[in-house]
Amino acid sequence: MELFGRPAHRSAMESGQAPGTLYIAPDAFDTRIRLWHIDDNEVTHIDEPDIETIEQMRDRPGRFWIDIAGFADDARIRAIGELFDLHPMVLADLVNIDRMTKVNALDQQALIIIQALHLSSEEQRPGLGQMGLLLGDNWLLSFRERPDPLIDPVLTRLERPTSRLRSESVDYLACALLNLAVDASFPVVEALADQVDEAEESVMTGRGQGMLGNIHRQRRALITLGRIFWRQRDLMARLLRDEEFFRRETHIYLRDVYDCTVQLMDMVETTRELAASLVEIHLSISANRTNEVMKTLTIMASIFIPLTFIVGIYGMNFEYMPELAQPWGYFAVLGFMAIVAGVLLLWFRRRGWLGNQS
Amino acid sequence: MELFGRPAHRSAMESGQAPGTLYIAPDAFDTRIRLWHIDDNEVTHIDEPDIETIEQMRDRPGRFWIDIAGFADDARIRAIGELFDLHPMVLADLVNIDRMTKVNALDQQALIIIQALHLSSEEQRPGLGQMGLLLGDNWLLSFRERPDPLIDPVLTRLERPTSRLRSESVDYLACALLNLAVDASFPVVEALADQVDEAEESVMTGRGQGMLGNIHRQRRALITLGRIFWRQRDLMARLLRDEEFFRRETHIYLRDVYDCTVQLMDMVETTRELAASLVEIHLSISANRTNEVMKTLTIMASIFIPLTFIVGIYGMNFEYMPELAQPWGYFAVLGFMAIVAGVLLLWFRRRGWLGNQS
Amino acid sequence: MELFGRPAHRSAMESGQAPGTLYIAPDAFDTRIRLWHIDDNEVTHIDEPDIETIEQMRDRPGRFWIDIAGFADDARIRAIGELFDLHPMVLADLVNIDRMTKVNALDQQALIIIQALHLSSEEQRPGLGQMGLLLGDNWLLSFRERPDPLIDPVLTRLERPTSRLRSESVDYLACALLNLAVDASFPVVEALADQVDEAEESVMTGRGQGMLGNIHRQRRALITLGRIFWRQRDLMARLLRDEEFFRRETHIYLRDVYDCTVQLMDMVETTRELAASLVEIHLSISANRTNEVMKTLTIMASIFIPLTFIVGIYGMNFEYMPELAQPWGYFAVLGFMAIVAGVLLLWFRRRGWLGNQS
Amino acid sequence: MELFGRPAHRSAMESGQAPGTLYIAPDAFDTRIRLWHIDDNEVTHIDEPDIETIEQMRDRPGRFWIDIAGFADDARIRAIGELFDLHPMVLADLVNIDRMTKVNALDQQALIIIQALHLSSEEQRPGLGQMGLLLGDNWLLSFRERPDPLIDPVLTRLERPTSRLRSESVDYLACALLNLAVDASFPVVEALADQVDEAEESVMTGRGQGMLGNIHRQRRALITLGRIFWRQRDLMARLLRDEEFFRRETHIYLRDVYDCTVQLMDMVETTRELAASLVEIHLSISANRTNEVMKTLTIMASIFIPLTFIVGIYGMNFEYMPELAQPWGYFAVLGFMAIVAGVLLLWFRRRGWLGNQS
Amino acid sequence: MELFGRPAHRSAMESGQAPGTLYIAPDAFDTRIRLWHIDDNEVTHIDEPDIETIEQMRDRPGRFWIDIAGFADDARIRAIGELFDLHPMVLADLVNIDRMTKVNALDQQALIIIQALHLSSEEQRPGLGQMGLLLGDNWLLSFRERPDPLIDPVLTRLERPTSRLRSESVDYLACALLNLAVDASFPVVEALADQVDEAEESVMTGRGQGMLGNIHRQRRALITLGRIFWRQRDLMARLLRDEEFFRRETHIYLRDVYDCTVQLMDMVETTRELAASLVEIHLSISANRTNEVMKTLTIMASIFIPLTFIVGIYGMNFEYMPELAQPWGYFAVLGFMAIVAGVLLLWFRRRGWLGNQS
Repeated sequence: MELFGRPAHRSAMESGQAPGTLYIAPDAFDTRIRLWHIDDNEVTHIDEPDIETIEQMRDRPGRFWIDIAGFADDARIRAIGELFDLHPMVLADLVNIDRMTKVNALDQQALIIIQALHLSSEEQRPGLGQMGLLLGDNWLLSFRERPDPLIDPVLTRLERPTSRLRSESVDYLACALLNLAVDASFPVVEALADQVDEAEESVMTGRGQGMLGNIHRQRRALITLGRIFWRQRDLMARLLRDEEFFRRETHIYLRDVYDCTVQLMDMVETTRELAASLVEIHLSISANRTNEVMKTLTIMASIFIPLTFIVGIYGMNFEYMPELAQPWGYFAVLGFMAIVAGVLLLWFRRRGWLGNQS
Repeated sequence: MELFGRPAHRSAMESGQAPGTLYIAPDAFDTRIRLWHIDDNEVTHIDEPDIETIEQMRDRPGRFWIDIAGFADDARIRAIGELFDLHPMVLADLVNIDRMTKVNALDQQALIIIQALHLSSEEQRPGLGQMGLLLGDNWLLSFRERPDPLIDPVLTRLERPTSRLRSESVDYLACALLNLAVDASFPVVEALADQVDEAEESVMTGRGQGMLGNIHRQRRALITLGRIFWRQRDLMARLLRDEEFFRRETHIYLRDVYDCTVQLMDMVETTRELAASLVEIHLSISANRTNEVMKTLTIMASIFIPLTFIVGIYGMNFEYMPELAQPWGYFAVLGFMAIVAGVLLLWFRRRGWLGNQS
Repeated sequence: MELFGRPAHRSAMESGQAPGTLYIAPDAFDTRIRLWHIDDNEVTHIDEPDIETIEQMRDRPGRFWIDIAGFADDARIRAIGELFDLHPMVLADLVNIDRMTKVNALDQQALIIIQALHLSSEEQRPGLGQMGLLLGDNWLLSFRERPDPLIDPVLTRLERPTSRLRSESVDYLACALLNLAVDASFPVVEALADQVDEAEESVMTGRGQGMLGNIHRQRRALITLGRIFWRQRDLMARLLRDEEFFRRETHIYLRDVYDCTVQLMDMVETTRELAASLVEIHLSISANRTNEVMKTLTIMASIFIPLTFIVGIYGMNFEYMPELAQPWGYFAVLGFMAIVAGVLLLWFRRRGWLGNQS
Repeated sequence: MELFGRPAHRSAMESGQAPGTLYIAPDAFDTRIRLWHIDDNEVTHIDEPDIETIEQMRDRPGRFWIDIAGFADDARIRAIGELFDLHPMVLADLVNIDRMTKVNALDQQALIIIQALHLSSEEQRPGLGQMGLLLGDNWLLSFRERPDPLIDPVLTRLERPTSRLRSESVDYLACALLNLAVDASFPVVEALADQVDEAEESVMTGRGQGMLGNIHRQRRALITLGRIFWRQRDLMARLLRDEEFFRRETHIYLRDVYDCTVQLMDMVETTRELAASLVEIHLSISANRTNEVMKTLTIMASIFIPLTFIVGIYGMNFEYMPELAQPWGYFAVLGFMAIVAGVLLLWFRRRGWLGNQS
Repeated sequence: MELFGRPAHRSAMESGQAPGTLYIAPDAFDTRIRLWHIDDNEVTHIDEPDIETIEQMRDRPGRFWIDIAGFADDARIRAIGELFDLHPMVLADLVNIDRMTKVNALDQQALIIIQALHLSSEEQRPGLGQMGLLLGDNWLLSFRERPDPLIDPVLTRLERPTSRLRSESVDYLACALLNLAVDASFPVVEALADQVDEAEESVMTGRGQGMLGNIHRQRRALITLGRIFWRQRDLMARLLRDEEFFRRETHIYLRDVYDCTVQLMDMVETTRELAASLVEIHLSISANRTNEVMKTLTIMASIFIPLTFIVGIYGMNFEYMPELAQPWGYFAVLGFMAIVAGVLLLWFRRRGWLGNQS
């Protein structure tokens, strides 16, 4: 999960630049621009429109949505920025990948930046994709870091003639996009929770040694996820609190997205606490096991070391050792050693070291 | 307690669906609908009313309560939703099992969703059941995930002619249902606290090894319970704070429910802290016990290993070993070994390793 | 301290009962009712007044205080409730033992429930006793769970003709009772702090093994105490904040009680942090001691095991072992073994395992 | 640091006493009263004034300051209290040593109680001294628990004709006294931080065993200090927030004192976190060291115990042991043992137990 | 990172001094004063202006900025203070190095003190440099502890004729300086995060022993950094909240700086939690490894110690030991020992101590 382990290197931006400068990463995704115009429930879709088309559409009555995915073509992005008369800081917030989640009430518009977590299908690894929304009076611009299929469910719904997306205003559309961005996190969190459950079973059945690295990696991921969802929840709470961003009628849908972020936070927090408990329990189980191993060694050594000493005595080569000459000497010593061993075993039993050692 | 270890899989819902879609789980309980109409202290009870009956009752003067338990029959539920002109999001909140606790002030109504924890009698395992209340002017709809006997005490009280349930307005009834939902948690928490007490006794008497798994499971349950009660307390606090939900006269009963949630939180928090302390104490007790085992081994080995070395010397077969020929040699060596053992014992005693080893 | 380890079993109340039902425990203390009437600095004291007497006193000018200690006689308690026209929920709050601390502003009265902690003199164990105050315009009802001498200092002061208790209004009297309830906690907390200090000394001098159970019990008690004092502090802060409960002139005395609760919280928090630090330190000391024991064993074993091997070689019975026949063989082996032992000792010294092992 | 390890025993006050009773400890310091009168920049200083002098001074125009240090002479203190018409609770707050930090806005006056921490020069141990300020319109009373030189810097400044202390109003003087009380804590905190640094070096260089007791004592002191500074910061923040206590022009100086308390809190918190990290690190270092000791023992024992067994075999006295008769037998066994030892060494090396063991 | 491990010794200031006294450290940097005057987009730069020049510039129309770097020349600094009529406390805040971050709204001006963290290029060690801003109506004074190139990017931008720095008011300039002060922290935090990552890899691959000291030092640094960024964030939040400091149009830039401090806090918090998890994981890994070492020792010793005892028996020199005379005795004993060893091995295998020991 190192992908989002550390926020983008802001310091990589040359400090001599004025704020509001655009930074297009060399590995930025190719830009794909799509436009939808909705008027009287009629949807017009234009793929890769040029600036003039966008301008025409802007001036037609009705609502429209432009989705800009991938930021490699900064010329076109700048052109769109100029067309909509965006402040340089606003465009920089939308395009620069700072891994921040924020909301900003501009004069006539609302700026929302969210980091969408997803489990990329090909690699089965979580990744972050920034989605910026600029919500105008009757239009919506969405800036997405990568041209992934995140928004496809909305497109599917848009094709249905009865969809509420066609009849509601653009803030309902913005809400639907936020919903997708938040919903995409569930598989990631569930995968992590499954991994912690697995680690739990290993620890409980005493096979937890190799799991420690995994648990640490899971905690690392959970720390990062916790921060992301915390910011998302703050964002949604602010959108709900300040009525300037969304219309009152859309709040019932927005609250649904808010509930999702609360649920994500809860899942992450619960899993984190489980993982922390797991490390403690593992340490205790280790200590118990060391104890058990030590007891075995101590019992074996404490019984046989004295006995070995006794047989060593009668292995000495002194010329005058009266016991050696007795015919009963050997058996007397064997008997004495049996008594010694018995006494020691009794003593260990009384200390509770024998019997149930599990 | 895995039943509620993880919230319902929201991501299982197809993302292409519009918000407000109903999701009926394949194993949803069969729907049972009951209606009570209260007018001039007279209670009319109708089991499984059809939509027309409900419509008639709705239009009669007086108050009425419809309890919908089990969501398998979504057609009837949708019909009731239409009859009461519910927003699709409201019906989805009531019927979809998201394991959320929430309250929402609608225009004329109040929506309350609570997760009731109970100790199911047959399995002795805790389970969660969602209860949604929709509180109108003079009517109350209760949507319960499972048709369990949770509400029976209210039904019993309703049968008594003198019951306040007959004379008070419907928000008193809603308050009684919330009370039952919260009260049902006490046996679960008490069972957990008993288990932690048991684990405590085991740890204190040195039989805590097998208890670690139990303690972890208890902590796991307590983490989840803590979150549930936290949300319940927030819910009750909000109901008390915003006077729009309940009439001022009902607040004295509502405060009683709030006090219950505070008490539940306190019990869970106390038990959690106890369990955390227990793991630490167990680790320390383990460390002590390892220490004690080590001391035994060290004393035994440190005394007998040198002695065995000495007897080994006189077991060597060198032709010229002057001591061997002496008649007093054997006894001198025995004496020397007694002195060595005595000195070592003294040294151990001075280090405090002998004597009280418990 | 198990007495207050868990709040009273609310779930034991039958759920089919309406809220506001009184629950008199089978082992409730016998009821003792006392009445004091104060008029023009003249105090009339009536022990065990009947209802008619109370009614007469109520209607006389001046102020009066009724103390009800022990709740076994619920008939009389109910009669008093009716006499003062108490809401069933209010009487239930006063009489049912829920171990809650709460304050409630009723229409004309203030309801205060506090849990008084005391060190019962005969058993030297802490116990909890509920004290409920109902503060009317010119009268005060105090409901105390047990007829203990907690309020005696106030009675003593009341006998002095110059006492401010005679001249001030009843909220000054209520404040004095709260003061006694809070003050009674100091000996309990001090006893606990003394026990933790004792445990500290044991741990520091290396005799902490048997102390772990004690420390856990102290932490358990401190967790419970912390919650009790937290609630008490909240209660006092609310009484100070909302001026509806106490007259402005009484606030200077109320603030004194508030300061006590702050001090109690501080003492409990400090002691808790000490106890937590103690367990960590104990674990570290244990680990150090194990280390030291291990070093002793390792040094002894590492020196004598090779030597025993060497003497074992020359104890073999091979017919052809050239060294055995040499007259200097024995002494050469002794010398060689001395060198081996010396080298090992040097190596241990260089690793820092010899010398200061404490 | 036990001196302030526990707040003064409030419970030692007899509970039968009315609030506002003065408690003069038997070991209270002798009372020294000093008065300064400031008028038109002229300073009159009177040592040990009698009550009549104070009364005259009170009625003269200008400002004056009375410093009462040591509370043994409660008759004179009571007389001053009567002269200034102080409420009994106010005088009790000023004179009783409760180790509380508080501020109280009286009708015409402000009451400030602060606990000044200092490193007593003769003993090099920290101690607490209560300083109470009563700030009137044009006068200031300071009640100090002990007649120490804490306020001397203000006296020095007061002697300078150009000092702002002569021209500003008395709240500037009060602010200067608070500044001294807070500033006196810096040497104490710095001494503690130095001790933790020392302990850190010991732990890092592996000589931390004897340091554990010290670290615990430092943590104990830091817990107490943290609470004291927390209260001081709250006090200063409240003085800044509520403009009734100090004139607006004095706030710039008051903010300076506030900044000091913030800095003290930061230092204490940082040092506490360091000490906590230190204990954890020490435990890990101990575990590492035990590991290393164990490895040494295991390697030594695992190599020589099998070898000793082999030589033991050929030390048996069976009449028929064919190897013994072979001339090459001895050397064959030596060679075989060398191979066994070599194989074991290789195995240990492959497990990474040899080589770098530090 | 000891440089900023402890705030400057406030106590070193003589307590007898009045507040507002300037303390110039003996090793203060040489003072360098630079002035920029901006009028109609024309920039006039004067290096080391004398007081008269500054006064002339002050009285000319347009905006100007004076940067004072290094505080050794306190005479000139005092002269500037007098020229701008600064309160002694304000000048002391700007020049004394208290390592505080604060903001103060003066009558006509805003005072901002920030601690800029940087990675000094020559030593690769982090250091702190105080930057104080005094923001007037149309002028800005910046007081910087050390004459480092921190502000160079702003100077570069100022040279460009189209720079917004020339057209905007002075609060935009102040915002740019704050931006530089905050941005300079990123390399420090990233270096720390890299070090923790390194330590993580060492711990995970079992080479974490030597890393413990490093981890502690990193935690120490992170504790300090956390406090610095916390204060910076508070500062920026307050600047954004109170509109008196910066013009509304500058807020969009200020918010950008605020976002940086949030990001720094997040990075520090994440890295701290990682480091804490690392210490726990390391302890668990150590315990596992000790366990494994112990098992090896126990298996070796438990198998060979009984065998050595058996061979010891037949090494005894009793005259009458019947087995010794049997021709099959030797082989019978060898076989018996093989059986004993086999049984023990089986027992260990059944306990799971053999096989996979990693």
